[in-house]
Amino acid sequence: MLSFACDYLEGAHEKILQRLIETNYEKVPGYSADKYCESANERIKQACECPAAEVYFLVGGTQTNAIVIDTMLQRYEGVIAATTGHVNVHEAGAIEHAGHKVLTVPSYQGKMKAADVRSLLQGFWQDGSHEHMVYPGMVYLSHPTEYGTLYSKQELTDIAEVCHEYQIPLYLDGARLGYGLMSKSTDLTLADIARICDVFYIGGTKVGALCGEAAVFTKQNMPKHFNTLVKQHGAMLAKGRLLGIQFDTLFTDNLYFEIAAHAIRMAEKLKAGFKERGYSFHLDSPTNQQFIILSNEQIEKLSGKVTFEFWEPVDETHQVVRFATSWATREEDVDALMALLDELVN
Amino acid sequence: MLSFACDYLEGAHEKILQRLIETNYEKVPGYSADKYCESANERIKQACECPAAEVYFLVGGTQTNAIVIDTMLQRYEGVIAATTGHVNVHEAGAIEHAGHKVLTVPSYQGKMKAADVRSLLQGFWQDGSHEHMVYPGMVYLSHPTEYGTLYSKQELTDIAEVCHEYQIPLYLDGARLGYGLMSKSTDLTLADIARICDVFYIGGTKVGALCGEAAVFTKQNMPKHFNTLVKQHGAMLAKGRLLGIQFDTLFTDNLYFEIAAHAIRMAEKLKAGFKERGYSFHLDSPTNQQFIILSNEQIEKLSGKVTFEFWEPVDETHQVVRFATSWATREEDVDALMALLDELVN
Amino acid sequence: MLSFACDYLEGAHEKILQRLIETNYEKVPGYSADKYCESANERIKQACECPAAEVYFLVGGTQTNAIVIDTMLQRYEGVIAATTGHVNVHEAGAIEHAGHKVLTVPSYQGKMKAADVRSLLQGFWQDGSHEHMVYPGMVYLSHPTEYGTLYSKQELTDIAEVCHEYQIPLYLDGARLGYGLMSKSTDLTLADIARICDVFYIGGTKVGALCGEAAVFTKQNMPKHFNTLVKQHGAMLAKGRLLGIQFDTLFTDNLYFEIAAHAIRMAEKLKAGFKERGYSFHLDSPTNQQFIILSNEQIEKLSGKVTFEFWEPVDETHQVVRFATSWATREEDVDALMALLDELVN
Amino acid sequence: MLSFACDYLEGAHEKILQRLIETNYEKVPGYSADKYCESANERIKQACECPAAEVYFLVGGTQTNAIVIDTMLQRYEGVIAATTGHVNVHEAGAIEHAGHKVLTVPSYQGKMKAADVRSLLQGFWQDGSHEHMVYPGMVYLSHPTEYGTLYSKQELTDIAEVCHEYQIPLYLDGARLGYGLMSKSTDLTLADIARICDVFYIGGTKVGALCGEAAVFTKQNMPKHFNTLVKQHGAMLAKGRLLGIQFDTLFTDNLYFEIAAHAIRMAEKLKAGFKERGYSFHLDSPTNQQFIILSNEQIEKLSGKVTFEFWEPVDETHQVVRFATSWATREEDVDALMALLDELVN
Repeated sequence: MLSFACDYLEGAHEKILQRLIETNYEKVPGYSADKYCESANERIKQACECPAAEVYFLVGGTQTNAIVIDTMLQRYEGVIAATTGHVNVHEAGAIEHAGHKVLTVPSYQGKMKAADVRSLLQGFWQDGSHEHMVYPGMVYLSHPTEYGTLYSKQELTDIAEVCHEYQIPLYLDGARLGYGLMSKSTDLTLADIARICDVFYIGGTKVGALCGEAAVFTKQNMPKHFNTLVKQHGAMLAKGRLLGIQFDTLFTDNLYFEIAAHAIRMAEKLKAGFKERGYSFHLDSPTNQQFIILSNEQIEKLSGKVTFEFWEPVDETHQVVRFATSWATREEDVDALMALLDELVN
Repeated sequence: MLSFACDYLEGAHEKILQRLIETNYEKVPGYSADKYCESANERIKQACECPAAEVYFLVGGTQTNAIVIDTMLQRYEGVIAATTGHVNVHEAGAIEHAGHKVLTVPSYQGKMKAADVRSLLQGFWQDGSHEHMVYPGMVYLSHPTEYGTLYSKQELTDIAEVCHEYQIPLYLDGARLGYGLMSKSTDLTLADIARICDVFYIGGTKVGALCGEAAVFTKQNMPKHFNTLVKQHGAMLAKGRLLGIQFDTLFTDNLYFEIAAHAIRMAEKLKAGFKERGYSFHLDSPTNQQFIILSNEQIEKLSGKVTFEFWEPVDETHQVVRFATSWATREEDVDALMALLDELVN
Repeated sequence: MLSFACDYLEGAHEKILQRLIETNYEKVPGYSADKYCESANERIKQACECPAAEVYFLVGGTQTNAIVIDTMLQRYEGVIAATTGHVNVHEAGAIEHAGHKVLTVPSYQGKMKAADVRSLLQGFWQDGSHEHMVYPGMVYLSHPTEYGTLYSKQELTDIAEVCHEYQIPLYLDGARLGYGLMSKSTDLTLADIARICDVFYIGGTKVGALCGEAAVFTKQNMPKHFNTLVKQHGAMLAKGRLLGIQFDTLFTDNLYFEIAAHAIRMAEKLKAGFKERGYSFHLDSPTNQQFIILSNEQIEKLSGKVTFEFWEPVDETHQVVRFATSWATREEDVDALMALLDELVN
Repeated sequence: MLSFACDYLEGAHEKILQRLIETNYEKVPGYSADKYCESANERIKQACECPAAEVYFLVGGTQTNAIVIDTMLQRYEGVIAATTGHVNVHEAGAIEHAGHKVLTVPSYQGKMKAADVRSLLQGFWQDGSHEHMVYPGMVYLSHPTEYGTLYSKQELTDIAEVCHEYQIPLYLDGARLGYGLMSKSTDLTLADIARICDVFYIGGTKVGALCGEAAVFTKQNMPKHFNTLVKQHGAMLAKGRLLGIQFDTLFTDNLYFEIAAHAIRMAEKLKAGFKERGYSFHLDSPTNQQFIILSNEQIEKLSGKVTFEFWEPVDETHQVVRFATSWATREEDVDALMALLDELVN
């Protein structure tokens, strides 16, 4: 059966597996003090054109969000996010579990607007009773968003300016960062993101790795005793080499960018295919997640032949569904999907 | 350079890497809903001779301890541990981070005694002011302990009886469980442990895996909505297959036990070698960690040739150091270590 | 200077102070195990016509909300509240500090609608990915709301029905409950509230007491070991008599209701006075808080003569301000306020 | 019936009740922004001879401990306390509830020794693996201790020196501070304590108040946005006047010290009485709590005539019990107790 259900269906890029085998019997220190983590760290700083950056490898996205947000906020602070933000909806309350409120601004196809962030911050600081309220202490956004959409360089810069005016950090969740950077519609480079944001993470899990995210603190602002805080969150990996080797491989010879570009090509092909066949889109996504409107009848006919994810109902007879491509998507599978669509109408 | 610094110096058993490659392009669901997790789950239940067990795969030991303890305790409860217990000393306060106190009983070479546990519980329940105290809600012990020592079947049963008398669960931290089960001195089988304990975990990270621990709830007592609780702790792995494949491999054809037995053979050889050469031991460890007393002079001479871990000072001129073997220890390295020791005296 | 800034400007009803003096040298046990707490408990159960109720005295409103919500929720659950709910806005993140998310529904002049609650619950339970989301575990509402508005018996019953359909408790924050019960517009009695809600609290701080709120668990549902949980929250009062004596006095000879009725009479007079003089109201409040629209010029003229609270801007030249009456408001002060208003136009 | 069960049996000093009545109808701002809090604050700073001190009024002792410790520690830090310290034993895990570990040093009749604190700190900072351990971030001690014992000026200074060498604050829990300061055996004044400690609290609940503790930050070290942190802990009192008026009264005309001195005189008389009659003491307490060894037979005979607190068993036929005096103890009650003792032997 075909599957476009998500972008973490397969294992890892084969070069990563190859490296794991090659290095397997080397004895290296634990807890990311090994040479592979060090090398990956250096390569990422170079790719970010940010020599002062501090890079820390963690295992998963929710974990990274929970730790970065908890450790960069003061106790009296919460994090600003779009209502649709991953930390606000799909992390089982991990942010609140660590004691912090998510303060929401409206979502426009997954994105927040600088004006709304400014309005929240202005309102807070003007309001005399702010001592009884949670201090807004950080802005969180995902790029690409949960809806596959992207911020432009201007939009991201505008949000950063609001943050810096109010002296709070801007944090970018890059679970799918590769797919954002390789989108044909973006004007943001990795170096731009490192320059504009105070902290962000480069997602590995969804872009070629078995697991792993690289948190990048760009302003010499990694929280003090971060290792201990990570351990306290139960997130320190004994064999840190597993993360180091993966990111070292992904950031050698542009692998991360090349495999992300492949996913984008597959998404573009899939998108064009649906368009040619007259399908409607829930929104115009420039990345690897495509949100398409299907009738219940179409869904039924595709059932058992291809998997995808239900997103939200449109009306009683139509649904928004998500088709995702990834670094591992085979072109022949996209072709097969198109053939399936053609069968539907016959 | 030789290294016996710890038991997580290398990657993973090659059969695991082989399986990762073989299965790499299979598309499977995320979050441990894949067939490898299911198969591993079944194999572990069989190995435990506990068909009713519920098995859950997590990434690391501190994470597993923090989650199991937090989710099985009520808010007003703390966990009883030996003063030397890993959760009391070396987890950066992860248990307290989730809101629970560690209540301590004396440690005897890393082990607790049933009598001390009973005494704590009796004292609590007799004391009229217990409403102002933390309720003892669970017993935590590690097996092998942090000192490489083992509980006998009788000792473990005695502790379990105290627990059940007071209706609290017994939790066994099996970070190095394989090395305990394969020790020549043990009378405890995996099935015994599954029968005696309410919950325990089978350590993968230190016994052949890249990462991963298998939490086993033996009494249909997995906390409700455990998936959500795991997610909330930032511990849910998107590509759960990474854990499933590893444990499925480890529990196929007795691999877990065989590789653990190898580590024990290496430890026995190392122990015998030190003994023959007249070295003193800090304690008599029947598992893969050996605690040897070296003079500062000996340490200096070995420096740069072999790595080991400093444990604690004996006096101004001597130290307890730890030599650990593992599934990956090569016999030639033990021989080389012995040759080094022989050089010291020449 | 006149003041209508809030409803906690004065100390306590003089009968309470009198009782404190009369009982001062009686030696009674600490931690609310005294006869005054016992008597107050009985009187409240009678007033609620709920003999099975369990009553617990706490010091303040945020404290009561934080403890009730934290101890009645499971770790994986959050609390549903209106966006304007006190727990969502003005408690400095006390709910999140204890690890729980506030899940919001729209606010209509401070009130939530049963349909919105149902919609949130339906959406959650239909969505297959709910394991990655916070479980909705309780409904919180305030009555009167932060905007002085009231639920009708039908509205409250409808919300309770949704709660019970989804088997989650309904919690009513009664910080100003007295003023709600004595409003001329209400059809809800204290007995109704005790019958309809699973837990609620009767506010003392704003209705005649120096401090103190009486949490009422109506369905034999006080969390186990509640004393210990309260102590853990730092909320157990050594001299519980202070709370017992106050509530015992308030619930003797209808004092609580009579003093609340006085506040309502004063509010009605104030409201009528503003109306007669042609002022606009932000909304039609049937309780002791009146939200009036003043021009900046009016505000300036009143400044230094009467205090009130700024609520929110209407436009560049007008503000919503709040005038609150209380059990302690003197009729002559309302008259003086009206005289001030008359001066404004001369 | 006579009672010496604890030092919070009665209400408040009558001058406090008188002030509550006198000020009752004054309209003052909430949340401790009133003139009584301000005046009390000034008087306390004067009594402490510490003009730079920042004073904050809270309701109870466990609450004060939980908030001071949580807000002065970093997330990766725990608090050092004697094994018998109130925060380690009798606060239901309130410190851990806020995420911090209590790190223990031995208790000598309730006191800690500077040498043990130094040893813990040295051990931590020498140990290379401290990243996996909780950082010791504060020293907590109670004065008088839970056993009624007192630190000498030299002992307290020694502990402070260790703290300052390791750059962590010294926090003194003064739940019964008045009784310590008025003890005949002490060489510590309130000004000494303010000079030596970084933060401490002056207990009101046990020394004349209905409730209330005054936290004193002596080194311009009150945590940022402390109001918000207090609110987040559910500890902010709406009618802060209740605390302000009480402490303002206690620190007017030496009332706090005079009523504490009375309790000490009563304790000395009681102690002398037991001594004359040949009773043994568990330890030699110089403050208002006296720990006396009674036989079970004596306990039975006194039962129903006088109440006291069971402390701990001595052997099968004897118990340590506590008799406490307070600001409210009447001399005639001590006489009556002695008469009871005389009856026992007839």
